Amino acid sequence: MSTWPKNAWYAAAWDHEVGAGLLARTICDTPVVLYRTLAGEPVALHDACPHRLLPLSMGFREGDSVRCRYHGLKLGADGVAEEMPLRNASVNRKVCTRTYPLVDRHRLVWIWLGDADKADPALIPDLWPCSTDGWVFDGGYYRVACDYRLLIDNLMDLTHETWVHQTSIGQKEIVEHPLETVVEGDRVLVKRWMPEIDPPPFWRNALGKPGKVDRWQICEFVAPSNVIIDVGVAPVEDGATLEDHDTGARAFVIDCMTPETATSCHYFWGMSRHFGQDDRGLTGRLQAGQAGVFFEDVEVLEAQQRSIEANPHLKMTAYEIDSGGVKSRLIIQRMIRSEQAP
Amino acid sequence: MSTWPKNAWYAAAWDHEVGAGLLARTICDTPVVLYRTLAGEPVALHDACPHRLLPLSMGFREGDSVRCRYHGLKLGADGVAEEMPLRNASVNRKVCTRTYPLVDRHRLVWIWLGDADKADPALIPDLWPCSTDGWVFDGGYYRVACDYRLLIDNLMDLTHETWVHQTSIGQKEIVEHPLETVVEGDRVLVKRWMPEIDPPPFWRNALGKPGKVDRWQICEFVAPSNVIIDVGVAPVEDGATLEDHDTGARAFVIDCMTPETATSCHYFWGMSRHFGQDDRGLTGRLQAGQAGVFFEDVEVLEAQQRSIEANPHLKMTAYEIDSGGVKSRLIIQRMIRSEQAP
Amino acid sequence: MSTWPKNAWYAAAWDHEVGAGLLARTICDTPVVLYRTLAGEPVALHDACPHRLLPLSMGFREGDSVRCRYHGLKLGADGVAEEMPLRNASVNRKVCTRTYPLVDRHRLVWIWLGDADKADPALIPDLWPCSTDGWVFDGGYYRVACDYRLLIDNLMDLTHETWVHQTSIGQKEIVEHPLETVVEGDRVLVKRWMPEIDPPPFWRNALGKPGKVDRWQICEFVAPSNVIIDVGVAPVEDGATLEDHDTGARAFVIDCMTPETATSCHYFWGMSRHFGQDDRGLTGRLQAGQAGVFFEDVEVLEAQQRSIEANPHLKMTAYEIDSGGVKSRLIIQRMIRSEQAP
Repeated sequence: MSTWPKNAWYAAAWDHEVGAGLLARTICDTPVVLYRTLAGEPVALHDACPHRLLPLSMGFREGDSVRCRYHGLKLGADGVAEEMPLRNASVNRKVCTRTYPLVDRHRLVWIWLGDADKADPALIPDLWPCSTDGWVFDGGYYRVACDYRLLIDNLMDLTHETWVHQTSIGQKEIVEHPLETVVEGDRVLVKRWMPEIDPPPFWRNALGKPGKVDRWQICEFVAPSNVIIDVGVAPVEDGATLEDHDTGARAFVIDCMTPETATSCHYFWGMSRHFGQDDRGLTGRLQAGQAGVFFEDVEVLEAQQRSIEANPHLKMTAYEIDSGGVKSRLIIQRMIRSEQAP
Repeated sequence: MSTWPKNAWYAAAWDHEVGAGLLARTICDTPVVLYRTLAGEPVALHDACPHRLLPLSMGFREGDSVRCRYHGLKLGADGVAEEMPLRNASVNRKVCTRTYPLVDRHRLVWIWLGDADKADPALIPDLWPCSTDGWVFDGGYYRVACDYRLLIDNLMDLTHETWVHQTSIGQKEIVEHPLETVVEGDRVLVKRWMPEIDPPPFWRNALGKPGKVDRWQICEFVAPSNVIIDVGVAPVEDGATLEDHDTGARAFVIDCMTPETATSCHYFWGMSRHFGQDDRGLTGRLQAGQAGVFFEDVEVLEAQQRSIEANPHLKMTAYEIDSGGVKSRLIIQRMIRSEQAP
Repeated sequence: MSTWPKNAWYAAAWDHEVGAGLLARTICDTPVVLYRTLAGEPVALHDACPHRLLPLSMGFREGDSVRCRYHGLKLGADGVAEEMPLRNASVNRKVCTRTYPLVDRHRLVWIWLGDADKADPALIPDLWPCSTDGWVFDGGYYRVACDYRLLIDNLMDLTHETWVHQTSIGQKEIVEHPLETVVEGDRVLVKRWMPEIDPPPFWRNALGKPGKVDRWQICEFVAPSNVIIDVGVAPVEDGATLEDHDTGARAFVIDCMTPETATSCHYFWGMSRHFGQDDRGLTGRLQAGQAGVFFEDVEVLEAQQRSIEANPHLKMTAYEIDSGGVKSRLIIQRMIRSEQAP
């Protein structure tokens, strides 16, 4: 049984990754080739020539079409044959490769691998901080050799920052403050409020001034495989609250965990900030800092995946801090089951 | 079910590869060790000591015998024990490793892995251009991580030269000319005639003079895993025809695709030419050129193999250009079936 | 079915390998983390956090406890939770990881992976030459990609020295002298006496004087996975015998072959000598010499394992020289069967 729903939008690539070239990527066990038409529309074709199955991503762009490197079968952006291997052969328009709906939104290109008639763009996760004026966004990409759900677990509880990210965003105050988990339909929220604490190095730098702060972490699961985290610190004198805290150094961490296979995923991560918007050097420094932080997670997650495989008789357990991940997985499970109902 | 017939001769090695040393090679899932007796006869033993299964290819040559590196069991070229691990122990001649018929012919050493009593050397594929006076032959070897039948498909239609070998032997005129497929018993022939065209770089150099040429490609499948291709160009004024074209720059491309496993093969390739016979520099240049051309095929074939495995729900389709490969595979299939008949 | 008994002591590490750090090792398919308490007691915990299964060996030492790197769950040396991920959460002492009995003895740390109530230290193999005054011991470690029983076979017959170790301890006289195999309960002894021969290079150096010697090899299997070999040479004039030979250059070779998986093992090897005890340079030279000798075995054993897997239709055969290994395997088989009896 699949570990992910098919009828859902998944982040396939950052928008700038898809262009004139042919980008090969396996998403939910499905090999696709991504590119843009001359008019800029993103295209996703199943990455196997219908003739002898050579990946189309090894082929040649010709206008908006792709020609297979092996025998020269030419397919349009609609996946339908436009030219057969022998030039004078009549074109059989039943020769085609499958196409997949693809939409540019929020700096990402989203793909729908399930029933095409259900691919409503209104269902694309609302990652507004990536694409809203006044917010400065930058991000990166890692391939991670773990079940995408381990990454959701990781992000739906930030207690791990204390230990995994000791030198940047972790601090002991995190484990000293309780968290609250709320489910609203297909959304799960995990909230933590840390009043009057010293900020850790990352946030001290971001804020740019000394003194006690209030710190918040509000993780939101957006089905089936995205997490948005409202994070930041504000000087105590600002009087911020868990409900109202658009002050100090505030940012949204954006995470899209797209399954590649059952034991690997594509991790699109980034940060959209509301502070120091005009400081381009800061953007670069934050990006480098995040890359380091997320790579610490990759190390842990890949070790965890290997350990799960090496210990088939052991089951993970869940405590209070894991309720965000547990409830997110229940939503995923419900989506999968509803697809399998008769 | 096996994807190859067992009762058939397979190219095991170039003749110069087999000598005083012990050459280990897996052929049709069978590990063998190859060497020559002092008298020059090629020998193939199953490459596992009957004692503790250490590969004999790790052992020591002693005269025409092989001594296992582990406990010193000594086996003759007939595979039968000549000395036991303890020197004074009486020799049990039932201790033996299997031998396989091996014949030197056409610059290759041929092995028969099936029923030894059916191993008639008259059945060895007639690769006469490798060993006929007046023809200059040179070749090479690649291990390719693909089903050997993908390589047969590749060679039984040269339409792919246009795209895979654009810079050497490919040209658009190939895809503009039809081909004809003929089956004669266990032979399959695919013929293409391209009259009055400009030769591509490789053939312009081979011919050594300017002007329009007639170009031909006649691919012949020689069961179960060999292809001979009659290729060349002749100045139009020579009046060559598809039937009679021993003029201009003519060569035979020799290809032996010996299965290693179900998803890998040994590829012995070469060219025998009828032009510039005394130009030894030309031999080296042709060899280097071929190595480059065939490596372009390796890249495509290995990607195709991976794509077939990644897309178990997709089947390759066949058009007119593929009829040579399709009919060759039918002959292979018939050979396999006849071995399994009761 | 397992290829090793569970209720037995296995060498897990050299004693000096286990200290303040966290040593990860898989033993009999079981991942464990090894360390010492501040008081010096060795500890073995199952190497997976009971929370999310991250290897504990990636975590942090805190006093005698280990804190998981992921969410900070803290476990004592008894494997029981001492602190939950949230600092104020009440500790559930049912949260724990399995511990395994561990005993320091004979320079090694021994682990018991089976029923803890049967872990009687009196059952630890008596490798007295590693830890007895007047004997100088040094050893090393290799991971070998083979079934541990192939290594037992290897050591329970030294005929292979002639061929595998030609340049150091091998000599043709070995294969010219018979061996005697004796079984005493769970012990197997293989004895070889080579009177009045020239010593091979290794032993000529050890003895430090010219002339004919008597040479002996007495291999003893100590269930389930250890071999002790009494080896040496004595000048003929000493009048040594197979029964009484504590003269000349005598040493015990110590070998512990601990299963890692069904096709790999940990190989702890060493030599304890009764000659040149004060020559520290000799200790280093012997250690280097042994490392070379044992690495020749590793090469052979790993090739043998691959060949066994590549030839599932072939069975190893056994001659007189193999009776030590055959009888050792019968004892292992009996131990496994007795564990499975109802």
